[in-house]
Amino acid sequence: MPTGEFPSVSEAVSQETINDYADLSGDYNPIHVDEAAGAASEFGGTIAHGPIALQTFFRSLTEWLDAPAPPAGTVVNITFRAPTRPGDTIHSELREQDGDEIKAECVNQDGTTVISATATIPS
Amino acid sequence: MPTGEFPSVSEAVSQETINDYADLSGDYNPIHVDEAAGAASEFGGTIAHGPIALQTFFRSLTEWLDAPAPPAGTVVNITFRAPTRPGDTIHSELREQDGDEIKAECVNQDGTTVISATATIPS
Repeated sequence: MPTGEFPSVSEAVSQETINDYADLSGDYNPIHVDEAAGAASEFGGTIAHGPIALQTFFRSLTEWLDAPAPPAGTVVNITFRAPTRPGDTIHSELREQDGDEIKAECVNQDGTTVISATATIPS
Repeated sequence: MPTGEFPSVSEAVSQETINDYADLSGDYNPIHVDEAAGAASEFGGTIAHGPIALQTFFRSLTEWLDAPAPPAGTVVNITFRAPTRPGDTIHSELREQDGDEIKAECVNQDGTTVISATATIPS
């Protein structure tokens, strides 16, 4: 396993980011792309697709591994904790490394954890 | 939990899909976007970012839940098994549902499982 510091990756999320992800993924749920529908929902506005925040973790992980992608056999455990909204800036933070296991969180500008993630890398 | 059938979502992946995901995620690793670097690698060509195949699972899951996004507290366990390449078509397949737990796989056109995913939905 790498001995260097687990890098923190930051991403500013805008409605444009979300619209671009909708185009890419084909997920045009109104909660993501329709500002009026978002405003009328329990969230009071649109929210980002889950993978948008999660990618800060994957980018940290692959930079840290100096690998193009998680190696085959990598297991990632993800818990969705809170929504990400346009205007949020999400960054990844290492919580713990124990052998082949990395625990990290995706955190917004208010310090709220939006996703917890644990990766187990095959050795 | 829903009683309807877990829907299969299919996605055709092209180099353009991968380039668009690089723009969105900021992950421009040559293994994804540089065809010469891909050809010279162990993969013999470019490979897609992991989340591109994974989104077939998330789209199935949210359609099945009839929810805009995985509910807060949802835990998703993912194992990366094989690369996805330009020209591949990935679809999601349900393997097992046991109470609040859904096991599914993202499978390519050759029947190779590229990702295994298990979601546990808070009840």
